[in-house]
Amino acid sequence: MIEISGTTRIFPVIGWPVEQVKAPALFNAYFQRHGIDARVVPLKVPPESYTAAVRMLMSFPNVGGIFVSIPHKPMSVSAVEQPSNRAVLAGACNAIYKDAEGMLLGDLIDGEGFIRAFDRTCAGKPLNWPAARALVVGSGGVGCAIAYALAERGIGQVAIYDTRTEQASALQARLQQAFPSVEFVIAPPAAAGFDVVVNSTPLGMHADDPLPIDLRGVSPGCVVADCGMKIEMTRLLRQAQEMGCRIQKGKEMLIEQAPLYLELFGWPGVSSDAFRALEAL
Amino acid sequence: MIEISGTTRIFPVIGWPVEQVKAPALFNAYFQRHGIDARVVPLKVPPESYTAAVRMLMSFPNVGGIFVSIPHKPMSVSAVEQPSNRAVLAGACNAIYKDAEGMLLGDLIDGEGFIRAFDRTCAGKPLNWPAARALVVGSGGVGCAIAYALAERGIGQVAIYDTRTEQASALQARLQQAFPSVEFVIAPPAAAGFDVVVNSTPLGMHADDPLPIDLRGVSPGCVVADCGMKIEMTRLLRQAQEMGCRIQKGKEMLIEQAPLYLELFGWPGVSSDAFRALEAL
Repeated sequence: MIEISGTTRIFPVIGWPVEQVKAPALFNAYFQRHGIDARVVPLKVPPESYTAAVRMLMSFPNVGGIFVSIPHKPMSVSAVEQPSNRAVLAGACNAIYKDAEGMLLGDLIDGEGFIRAFDRTCAGKPLNWPAARALVVGSGGVGCAIAYALAERGIGQVAIYDTRTEQASALQARLQQAFPSVEFVIAPPAAAGFDVVVNSTPLGMHADDPLPIDLRGVSPGCVVADCGMKIEMTRLLRQAQEMGCRIQKGKEMLIEQAPLYLELFGWPGVSSDAFRALEAL
Repeated sequence: MIEISGTTRIFPVIGWPVEQVKAPALFNAYFQRHGIDARVVPLKVPPESYTAAVRMLMSFPNVGGIFVSIPHKPMSVSAVEQPSNRAVLAGACNAIYKDAEGMLLGDLIDGEGFIRAFDRTCAGKPLNWPAARALVVGSGGVGCAIAYALAERGIGQVAIYDTRTEQASALQARLQQAFPSVEFVIAPPAAAGFDVVVNSTPLGMHADDPLPIDLRGVSPGCVVADCGMKIEMTRLLRQAQEMGCRIQKGKEMLIEQAPLYLELFGWPGVSSDAFRALEAL
């Protein structure tokens, strides 16, 4: 096993708080299993010094990239020199790294991770994408990323709900302009009539949280996904399963985006199965 | 074994370069053996952003302290808010941490580590300190720390040598003022007549380095110490051993100062034997 030494490449995961992050467990298990001299370490970065911290950390030559956690994802768009198109559109980054010329780049791979996980979830019964309707509850960093990714994947309609109505409307407007062939609407958090339902709010982190989505009348053909990882089987997922729906756990999104992180950070071509096999989450 | 997670306290070791540092191997072995949720990680910090980096890192609440490596030790005196007396006198810090009020403190424990190791080396045949004479070759961060610590321990004379004569004279003047009862002199790097001889230059890091000290005529009662850790048995130590001298390896200084680091960083009362038993160096 390769232990940490002076030659170890460091990949901070930054959040405020940071105690809940899962990236160290998942990626360090991968690095150790595959003999890679690298480690993911948590750094609790105060929001007020966020941009300076990102610039500073990325100026250290043995820092290879940054995993961005809450609440820093939106701020990352301006903290980097060149955010990707999807990061700009969604208004958030969750991966910061450098290109060969040293340019500071930011990307948002939450959504792509979600879609890859979703395609696995639906492997036996693929979605009819152009005819499908999705409800995304929560328009924070993760919700934006998923709404974007569903649209890019070719879904017919994305409905957005957030108690912060202005934020939801802003996301709707941005995505509508980027994807004219997809219909974006604001809708209440009620699952009836949708083919895909996604909780990207923090509700579900605690066992006694109220349900973020009203599941009454949901179609048994609907896929219900939760993005939280603190509790694996949230109330939402348990109830959806009882109602006959297929479910998708939060950790699947992280496992499916793990190879995307590795690719951005310099190790392309890894399958998500290499992470699934670790059973680290 | 406690793996890295979001709750792990992080202790950067900062240097430029940083590849050679031994603190991760030693301290992480200790943390893992004793079930402590903490890790030492290397960060390669460019000198030009040194002070800003120290302030930034110490503003992260899960960063508990910093191990300072070359060439940052002298700069640390001004980077912290309150350097210790010995740090000011020697002109270097190798440990940065916070007090209960959040004040950024710096200390220099290299010298104390050296003295503790030296007292072990001499356990069977203690030095007659007030009558003893020591030759310290090299007046960089480590040499300053050792000259200071020898004086504080009560030695009769400290001779200093450095090819950078102004730097050696400045150290001599600073210490003479602080310790009026000790005689400080500038002397050539020749061991004859001394009871303690210390190499604190980088010479010895490579197998074909020239000897930093002329050992001809050295007393067999002399203790010859080397501070380098890249090669355990340097040419100097091998030759001194052949001439009948007691020798002290560089890693002893790190092992003996390890409990001092832990004390500053919040875990007091640990014996150096707990580190020696790890056989991590």
